Amino acid sequence: VSEERATATGFPGPRVGIVGGGQLARMLAEAATPLGIHVRVLAATEGECAGEVVPDVVIGSPDDAEALRSFAATVDVLTFDHENVDHDALVQIERDGTPVRPGIATLRFADKAHQRREFAAAGLPVPPFVVIDPVRDLDHLSVADGFAARYGEMTNDGLIVLKASRGGYDGRGVWMLGRSELAAFLAAYRGAPLVLEPKLALERELAVLVARRPSGQIVTWPVVETIQVDGMCDEALLPAPVDVTLAAEAERIGRAVAITVDAVGVFAVELFVSDGQVLINEIAPRVHNSGHVTIEGSMTSQFSQHLRAVLDWPLGPTDSVAPAASMTNVVGDDADDPRDRQHLALAASPAAQLHLYGKAPRPARKIGHVTVLGTSLESCRAEARAAVDALIGGSGDDGVQGSSDG
Amino acid sequence: VSEERATATGFPGPRVGIVGGGQLARMLAEAATPLGIHVRVLAATEGECAGEVVPDVVIGSPDDAEALRSFAATVDVLTFDHENVDHDALVQIERDGTPVRPGIATLRFADKAHQRREFAAAGLPVPPFVVIDPVRDLDHLSVADGFAARYGEMTNDGLIVLKASRGGYDGRGVWMLGRSELAAFLAAYRGAPLVLEPKLALERELAVLVARRPSGQIVTWPVVETIQVDGMCDEALLPAPVDVTLAAEAERIGRAVAITVDAVGVFAVELFVSDGQVLINEIAPRVHNSGHVTIEGSMTSQFSQHLRAVLDWPLGPTDSVAPAASMTNVVGDDADDPRDRQHLALAASPAAQLHLYGKAPRPARKIGHVTVLGTSLESCRAEARAAVDALIGGSGDDGVQGSSDG
Repeated sequence: VSEERATATGFPGPRVGIVGGGQLARMLAEAATPLGIHVRVLAATEGECAGEVVPDVVIGSPDDAEALRSFAATVDVLTFDHENVDHDALVQIERDGTPVRPGIATLRFADKAHQRREFAAAGLPVPPFVVIDPVRDLDHLSVADGFAARYGEMTNDGLIVLKASRGGYDGRGVWMLGRSELAAFLAAYRGAPLVLEPKLALERELAVLVARRPSGQIVTWPVVETIQVDGMCDEALLPAPVDVTLAAEAERIGRAVAITVDAVGVFAVELFVSDGQVLINEIAPRVHNSGHVTIEGSMTSQFSQHLRAVLDWPLGPTDSVAPAASMTNVVGDDADDPRDRQHLALAASPAAQLHLYGKAPRPARKIGHVTVLGTSLESCRAEARAAVDALIGGSGDDGVQGSSDG
Repeated sequence: VSEERATATGFPGPRVGIVGGGQLARMLAEAATPLGIHVRVLAATEGECAGEVVPDVVIGSPDDAEALRSFAATVDVLTFDHENVDHDALVQIERDGTPVRPGIATLRFADKAHQRREFAAAGLPVPPFVVIDPVRDLDHLSVADGFAARYGEMTNDGLIVLKASRGGYDGRGVWMLGRSELAAFLAAYRGAPLVLEPKLALERELAVLVARRPSGQIVTWPVVETIQVDGMCDEALLPAPVDVTLAAEAERIGRAVAITVDAVGVFAVELFVSDGQVLINEIAPRVHNSGHVTIEGSMTSQFSQHLRAVLDWPLGPTDSVAPAASMTNVVGDDADDPRDRQHLALAASPAAQLHLYGKAPRPARKIGHVTVLGTSLESCRAEARAAVDALIGGSGDDGVQGSSDG
């Protein structure tokens, strides 16, 4: 099989197939190159941003079982840029002999309702919750109303958070409603089942990144604080400025989740800190925005580590390389294209590490991130923010040039 | 012009054209991706190693003036993986309007005879030397013999070093001869002019990396110690374990060379330390093996910095991110392919940063390097060496598997 594959890809080393061609695939490919790992990407369209920097791109839908199977047959291991993949095809691919990492059982944890039920059953700390299916459950409104009556008082403003169990990201698929608004919302709702939870008073949000190999080795990075704006991750701070007890609890939860979900590869556990308790908000069974800070900030980045983990190679150290590191996302805007403005960002913050994903700017679209290493989180945050502001520009045009040598 | 170019490459950001598709082009491309810089490579053949990871490769000879000109017309700035390029074509390309960086005057410094004469004329410290042209100069033997008579006694063993002024690398094009061997060697020699110097007793060898923008900004990295084996760089240690006076003198020389050669981009000055004095051995007008340690070891790598410099963007900080960093080259062997042995290297040294160039192993061929960051140079060197030994393998087969998930 190995020789057939070498012929298929024309490449002698390990071959990792990635389903999806977004920025996570792109950054996995960046990490693969120095490791001598060949990356082949299955992209749904020619325009996905990994294609700009990966020579070996196959066009095919992640819902097309035949496309997935023939793609998987040419690589040593299959992994993912996103979880919206035909699961039946993955079962067949494992039978065909190509490992799928993370495995199908882990990918099911992309469903927020499944997460909550399984974590609660495993005794892991989660917020109070209930799952309703407005499309199929006849009693969904009375269940929701009862939940709101009981838990609305836990919150400052009586609001209940409703999250679509599937398909949501970056604040999409999340609603906050008062008890009196539930009936009208649910009557009109036609989507996936909903997870309801009280709108907790949060002290902060954390994320713990974990990597696990098939042979069992587990490592975690120092816990990160994430700062959300409009339900979308805006900044990640490494290390989170929390006491050692809280950090240890976050790490303990990360390791327990690794076992519960039978993880292979890198995954992120997003955590709430509320009333001094650490609770699991949700997990992402893959490399994650909160881990982009590890590219420069850690001895081993989440992307290198994910490749090592899915190939069952020894994992690397996760120590930070600087006392502080901060990442700020670059979110699109109507006005300027950051791909012509790097010199302005570097003038504002010469130490800024720019990451542009090759995506055209659109409002509320993540198109890059900036990381700064230093000695204090506050100075790193200020430098990263200055670079992002220069990249995004805006109405006050400052004479940016299309060509850098003008 | 900018719009025509965008059409030609289908890419909205800055476009850097690299002549040559070796590992330096490959690592420049790795640095370009996160910066949102599009890289287009002019490779002489399909098989050059940058092509494995760069989608936009044009096949053409660096000696073909028309190929160079049409390639240059599609990019914002032209730079180099190597210096073996048709200089007349470069003059024309600059007239056509594409900046050539480094410029033609700087590229002439790839000639070792030109270097020595210019540096001596600028009052920079160089070893005693003489240049002879055995093909054209009638008196070359008497000049060489006179030099050997005068300077042979400076060395421990009376040897004279002869270096081909052009075309040598990694110990090729360098000979060490006694005075009595000169006549026979020169009678048979048919190559480029030779630089003669005494075989100095060296305390150590250093390298200082320098970056300069067209608008004048100059930065240097902390000086590196290089350790040579068989005339080829084997290790680079950051920072060089030398006193501050010596380090400051190396940096002073680096800055002075930047002015003398009118540098743009990154270049390396290789230095001898002999009898307490710092002398210029030679320069490479481009990113260099001694600077690979900056990829993980420095706040800004030589590759990111070179791209920033040739685009005339603000340069980044060159501070080290760890107290010590060590790089060891992976040199080919007859036996094993490192591209199937990464897991062994990472088992030996989990903190090793592997860099494989996508080149098949052959004896005395550089096919990768390994960097380790840490708190002491000695422990970094040991870990990097252990990883390299595991990558190279050898006759004592340790059961390596072709597939990583076996």
